[in-house]
Amino acid sequence: MSYECFDVSIEDKVAHIVLSRPEKRNAMAMSFWTDLPKIIADIDDNAKARAIVISSTGPIFCAGIDLTMLSSVGGDGNKNKADYGAAFLDKVTQLQDSLSSLESCRIPVIIAIQGGCIGGGVDLVTAADIRLGTDDSYICIQEINVGMTADVGTFPRILNHMPEGIVRELAYTGRKMGSKELMKHGFYNEVYDSQEAMVVAALDMAKTIASKPPLAVYGCKRIITYARDHNTRDTLDQIGVWNMSMLIPSEMMEAMQANMQKRDGTYSDLPKRKKA
Amino acid sequence: MSYECFDVSIEDKVAHIVLSRPEKRNAMAMSFWTDLPKIIADIDDNAKARAIVISSTGPIFCAGIDLTMLSSVGGDGNKNKADYGAAFLDKVTQLQDSLSSLESCRIPVIIAIQGGCIGGGVDLVTAADIRLGTDDSYICIQEINVGMTADVGTFPRILNHMPEGIVRELAYTGRKMGSKELMKHGFYNEVYDSQEAMVVAALDMAKTIASKPPLAVYGCKRIITYARDHNTRDTLDQIGVWNMSMLIPSEMMEAMQANMQKRDGTYSDLPKRKKA
Amino acid sequence: MSYECFDVSIEDKVAHIVLSRPEKRNAMAMSFWTDLPKIIADIDDNAKARAIVISSTGPIFCAGIDLTMLSSVGGDGNKNKADYGAAFLDKVTQLQDSLSSLESCRIPVIIAIQGGCIGGGVDLVTAADIRLGTDDSYICIQEINVGMTADVGTFPRILNHMPEGIVRELAYTGRKMGSKELMKHGFYNEVYDSQEAMVVAALDMAKTIASKPPLAVYGCKRIITYARDHNTRDTLDQIGVWNMSMLIPSEMMEAMQANMQKRDGTYSDLPKRKKA
Amino acid sequence: MSYECFDVSIEDKVAHIVLSRPEKRNAMAMSFWTDLPKIIADIDDNAKARAIVISSTGPIFCAGIDLTMLSSVGGDGNKNKADYGAAFLDKVTQLQDSLSSLESCRIPVIIAIQGGCIGGGVDLVTAADIRLGTDDSYICIQEINVGMTADVGTFPRILNHMPEGIVRELAYTGRKMGSKELMKHGFYNEVYDSQEAMVVAALDMAKTIASKPPLAVYGCKRIITYARDHNTRDTLDQIGVWNMSMLIPSEMMEAMQANMQKRDGTYSDLPKRKKA
Amino acid sequence: MSYECFDVSIEDKVAHIVLSRPEKRNAMAMSFWTDLPKIIADIDDNAKARAIVISSTGPIFCAGIDLTMLSSVGGDGNKNKADYGAAFLDKVTQLQDSLSSLESCRIPVIIAIQGGCIGGGVDLVTAADIRLGTDDSYICIQEINVGMTADVGTFPRILNHMPEGIVRELAYTGRKMGSKELMKHGFYNEVYDSQEAMVVAALDMAKTIASKPPLAVYGCKRIITYARDHNTRDTLDQIGVWNMSMLIPSEMMEAMQANMQKRDGTYSDLPKRKKA
Amino acid sequence: MSYECFDVSIEDKVAHIVLSRPEKRNAMAMSFWTDLPKIIADIDDNAKARAIVISSTGPIFCAGIDLTMLSSVGGDGNKNKADYGAAFLDKVTQLQDSLSSLESCRIPVIIAIQGGCIGGGVDLVTAADIRLGTDDSYICIQEINVGMTADVGTFPRILNHMPEGIVRELAYTGRKMGSKELMKHGFYNEVYDSQEAMVVAALDMAKTIASKPPLAVYGCKRIITYARDHNTRDTLDQIGVWNMSMLIPSEMMEAMQANMQKRDGTYSDLPKRKKA
Repeated sequence: MSYECFDVSIEDKVAHIVLSRPEKRNAMAMSFWTDLPKIIADIDDNAKARAIVISSTGPIFCAGIDLTMLSSVGGDGNKNKADYGAAFLDKVTQLQDSLSSLESCRIPVIIAIQGGCIGGGVDLVTAADIRLGTDDSYICIQEINVGMTADVGTFPRILNHMPEGIVRELAYTGRKMGSKELMKHGFYNEVYDSQEAMVVAALDMAKTIASKPPLAVYGCKRIITYARDHNTRDTLDQIGVWNMSMLIPSEMMEAMQANMQKRDGTYSDLPKRKKA
Repeated sequence: MSYECFDVSIEDKVAHIVLSRPEKRNAMAMSFWTDLPKIIADIDDNAKARAIVISSTGPIFCAGIDLTMLSSVGGDGNKNKADYGAAFLDKVTQLQDSLSSLESCRIPVIIAIQGGCIGGGVDLVTAADIRLGTDDSYICIQEINVGMTADVGTFPRILNHMPEGIVRELAYTGRKMGSKELMKHGFYNEVYDSQEAMVVAALDMAKTIASKPPLAVYGCKRIITYARDHNTRDTLDQIGVWNMSMLIPSEMMEAMQANMQKRDGTYSDLPKRKKA
Repeated sequence: MSYECFDVSIEDKVAHIVLSRPEKRNAMAMSFWTDLPKIIADIDDNAKARAIVISSTGPIFCAGIDLTMLSSVGGDGNKNKADYGAAFLDKVTQLQDSLSSLESCRIPVIIAIQGGCIGGGVDLVTAADIRLGTDDSYICIQEINVGMTADVGTFPRILNHMPEGIVRELAYTGRKMGSKELMKHGFYNEVYDSQEAMVVAALDMAKTIASKPPLAVYGCKRIITYARDHNTRDTLDQIGVWNMSMLIPSEMMEAMQANMQKRDGTYSDLPKRKKA
Repeated sequence: MSYECFDVSIEDKVAHIVLSRPEKRNAMAMSFWTDLPKIIADIDDNAKARAIVISSTGPIFCAGIDLTMLSSVGGDGNKNKADYGAAFLDKVTQLQDSLSSLESCRIPVIIAIQGGCIGGGVDLVTAADIRLGTDDSYICIQEINVGMTADVGTFPRILNHMPEGIVRELAYTGRKMGSKELMKHGFYNEVYDSQEAMVVAALDMAKTIASKPPLAVYGCKRIITYARDHNTRDTLDQIGVWNMSMLIPSEMMEAMQANMQKRDGTYSDLPKRKKA
Repeated sequence: MSYECFDVSIEDKVAHIVLSRPEKRNAMAMSFWTDLPKIIADIDDNAKARAIVISSTGPIFCAGIDLTMLSSVGGDGNKNKADYGAAFLDKVTQLQDSLSSLESCRIPVIIAIQGGCIGGGVDLVTAADIRLGTDDSYICIQEINVGMTADVGTFPRILNHMPEGIVRELAYTGRKMGSKELMKHGFYNEVYDSQEAMVVAALDMAKTIASKPPLAVYGCKRIITYARDHNTRDTLDQIGVWNMSMLIPSEMMEAMQANMQKRDGTYSDLPKRKKA
Repeated sequence: MSYECFDVSIEDKVAHIVLSRPEKRNAMAMSFWTDLPKIIADIDDNAKARAIVISSTGPIFCAGIDLTMLSSVGGDGNKNKADYGAAFLDKVTQLQDSLSSLESCRIPVIIAIQGGCIGGGVDLVTAADIRLGTDDSYICIQEINVGMTADVGTFPRILNHMPEGIVRELAYTGRKMGSKELMKHGFYNEVYDSQEAMVVAALDMAKTIASKPPLAVYGCKRIITYARDHNTRDTLDQIGVWNMSMLIPSEMMEAMQANMQKRDGTYSDLPKRKKA
């Protein structure tokens, strides 16, 4: 398959999705939003990989939503404001769902950010599991600079990535935040001095994850996402019920032996998902 | 208007509220609690400013609740404990509502902290959007040192400003935490070597915020507060519904042009609120 | 009382629980899980101490769940998967409740971590109020390395101790995180260059807490735990209702005088709990 | 005090608020919305009564919001849709708060409905504690018939007064539901064959309530409202904390003796609320 | 389009979906689950109708899930229990989503039940907005009779349709509940003495709904569903934000005039949804 | 075992707990509260029965909490109000937990109510799964008549058993509600003209439940309780995860065959719970 905005390759159980329109500063055109969840679903549903790395090309990781697209949101300007509103809500929900595919898939997503990550790009990277960056990278909640309130996912998720007061400053002032601060607050897991080094490290981390039992990784991803949105008691309960069927003696045995023998274990892939 | 505990001035769409009783270490007398929400409401409801800075005077930012006031909470000592309790709850709710006015107003509040911020002062600053401090500033959850459990807002909010284990230490031991640690944990957005420098920086940040489209800033404040108290899905939904009516093509156009022309845009103030 | 896995001593209103099986790397045998909540309850219900320190012995703070125990979870292998599941859920709930005793008791628990804190050990320490560590200490969410999804408390609690993206990395990769990073993210409150220094500091912090009015400390612990799991409004409400009966003028008077006189105050112990 | 839309009288610790514009079908003019919470607050804050009855005059209990008022909501038609939206939200919040005063006051409110209860009238009566009706009375969620989605309180509250499927029918079809069905579903507590009989019964029920210990009635009202919006565990917890200070041996003693002696007990009024 | 399990027709803005396999007792085969959400989406997204009626044919409204299908859930029996579990969860989620399409579409769904409504049939009808039944109809939570816990939607929804104690009896005993009791508890909106009369009434009610402004009906459906799952305060807030853009003066004017002139109003259809 | 307040017998997988102090009007003495959860746990943990019936003796089902016990709650009157409060909270939590044992056990509890069910008796019966009553039975939220706010479980649970407005009337007025109204609102599942007939029917219903697969009944009880306290989406998710391990092909096969052959199936008892 080929895509307007992405190159996709899979090797050693790791999928690598590359934003491939550097000449457009990797702006998020309509095909970006519609292709991304399909790519994720194809990898995940068919168990083609056990971890995903998303990286980019050129000096800008992602310049945000393509403004030509924005004008079409809500459609025909002649409609009354309620029709416009209903159509707008449908569209925004679609865009939100597109990025939420990173969160709802069963396998971890690592994002490697070089240069600028702007506007919709921030919505994108906050939905990933793990963020890495280059020394010269930065994020910018650009929406305030173009007269908008960010609406495809930044706010609910970024509050789990850095303290509330810092988020408010970024949102109200639209200032750039560089890699040093992003690292300090834990928004980034690690910083690298070149994109090459970062992508190598991202793929290495993905390979490490791919070497763990996929069902256990899936359980971790699901429970952490659940924990973020539920209270302590409900999460304890959910873990117990999940593990009623999710502890597999054979995989645990293999994992322990592999662990002792300092080799990678051999585990089943996730079951494929058959969509109706 | 003049106030016992505050000086208020407004310039360039930025309101500056100054704690003005240094000789009382800016202790929170009854008039502090009753005037603060009125000052905030006057600025916000009448759209007099687009951002608020709160700073203080003297060596102590705020020494906390005025203890003479505390003795009157719950009123007449002869009442039975249930009457006392009901009256106490009314009073505490009033005090909580006073500080929550910083959170429920439509415009951002930046607090600039010099010297000590103690007891009720911590309740106050945790309710603000953004906190700045001087090198020699500190906070102290003083309540434990005077035999109380903090009750006008610190605990629900400070957990979003620093990790839980750190909060617990401050709450149980009543120790001071200085600017270095406050900066490290993200409780402070920035630290300055003098109060003068800090207040200048606070007013500058406020001016930057005031140069952004007010309705978009209001949306950000509202959605971040909502996100803090709701799960991811509910927040995504709320953003979509909010933006059904809150994206204004004319203001977006002006913002983009101003952005490209590297000038401040010209935007409408928030609509005035008419209270019945 | 003597215990297989613990030594317990009480001095100056501070209880010290020491993991005492260094030769077993302080692995969590069945008696660990059953004795821990009994020890905590004995101290708390009988108001024997006002703070608890948990430290360990040997090079490894805790190597996690004893694997011989794990094999018995869920019991007889001949049962069908639903019987197995129901029995498993009972067992996991018991283990979760064991560690939750640190959270549900009325007095603060400080944990001092030397060397490795692995698997179930992480579940344990995330349930404590405050964590201290030695320079050479580390944690490891070991479950992924043995084919499991962590299930006795790590995930719901650790998200309040460090940013979400960092948690996900630890969970998916099973890598060790050392004291420097743990300190940076606020998982640790302080780091020490030797275990001796750390235990002295832990006991000192516990003594400081024990010198504060116990009912006020209890209130803080309860409200912070409540705040973590409820929204801002509900927590404000809960604090008000709690303090209807929990502000004690006599203890406040003593606290203020002790504070001014720079001496420790004299306060009542918590009321003893009579279990039916 | 005299009001455009209401007559208010107080006798035997029972306040009686009467909708007094039968010639306008008791439509809710602006003064209705602004006066109602003031009347409630005056009675409640000053402990003038222990229960409130709201009844009406003429053939229609309440015809709903005065449409002349509606046109002013959102104000000046020249504003852009975001300004309009922000102003609209302020206004609706004010209207919602007006009716919520029935729910947030400390004393029970009984509503006696004759004839038609239409549109905004339904928002009003769903916010009361107890509803009585005449045989010929009916309710009508009129909003759908005038092109609106009901917005000042009907939907969140009516789902606790009748089954969801019935609510949906009323909301989508705008049909009238008469006293027989309202009684069947428990929306009404009782039905009467004349308004006179109903008002006598309402005042009698209010007197019965007024004869009970006011702090205990207040506790019941608060806890039932809390229970409606929280889960079982949180409500159990809230009740326990509330009653820490709210069980009064002297009032319980008096209540038990009065109960045995089949006389009304003598209890303190609620403490007066001093607003700042 | 033609479907294995359904006949679909649309007239006068009302869609009529008929379960069309009476010879199979309208059992829910795989195509039932996959076609139903497609049929709903086609009607809703393309604004083909403003209300939907679902009725059935033969003596049994629906006999529940086709047991031949059940055996394939979870797929290949050779897998370990965790693989089975993960595949099972995917499948159940798909089945749940199929029925939830009745709830998440923008237009009301009325279900007309004749004869028996069994097992999966109960999951189906609880997801509809409004339920009508014939005198001789009944429901049966059949799952307990075949050794299962109902899992595609009955329990979360039926608790809003009848009291909890009644639900528990039906769930534990698997007994049939007839139309008389269903009517009494409000599970049914109305009962009819023949299927013909019922279907005529269902279509009439649908036509009434179709005569109301579609955007206002959509708002009601959305807000009632929201109210069911959120607390009072959040719902009040959501209504206010929704109506910021959803009150349309022109449609309100038309509605009021139509109302006064006792004619149906003329309103725009819902905007079509373009799926990417 | 013999108990002060109860007789317990088990036959045909049905446990029958009888309140056995008619001469004391079955008042809830301290031993009532401490023995009840032990009796339930003994039956449930040891899988001695698959359903429980609770009935009573004499003219009064239960007269409520024994007032001699009440005076000891909170203990020594000399303590300050905070000590009293903390001790009171412990005690109330114990009493709440006692009644919650009906809800948290794995098997259904049917309560058969004759004569009066008063005060604490209402707390008891609202915690059961199913309520039956005699014609002459009634309930009375007696707390208001003795100056209290009900605190051991009535309010959170009764709102799921009858409409909110009816609950409020009972709570504020302390009036008796008889079997006819209790039946109408669905608080009772059935009414009988004698206690003998009622107990026979209760045991019959229990036997029916005991004839169903115990793991499926347990699943139903758990999920309905979960559904009552969570939203629709969370409950759908919980059901799916539960059934990952809880659908047992062999028991389903047996159930279907038994169903077809119109005989009772043969199923495994619940697994015994081994408490540490």
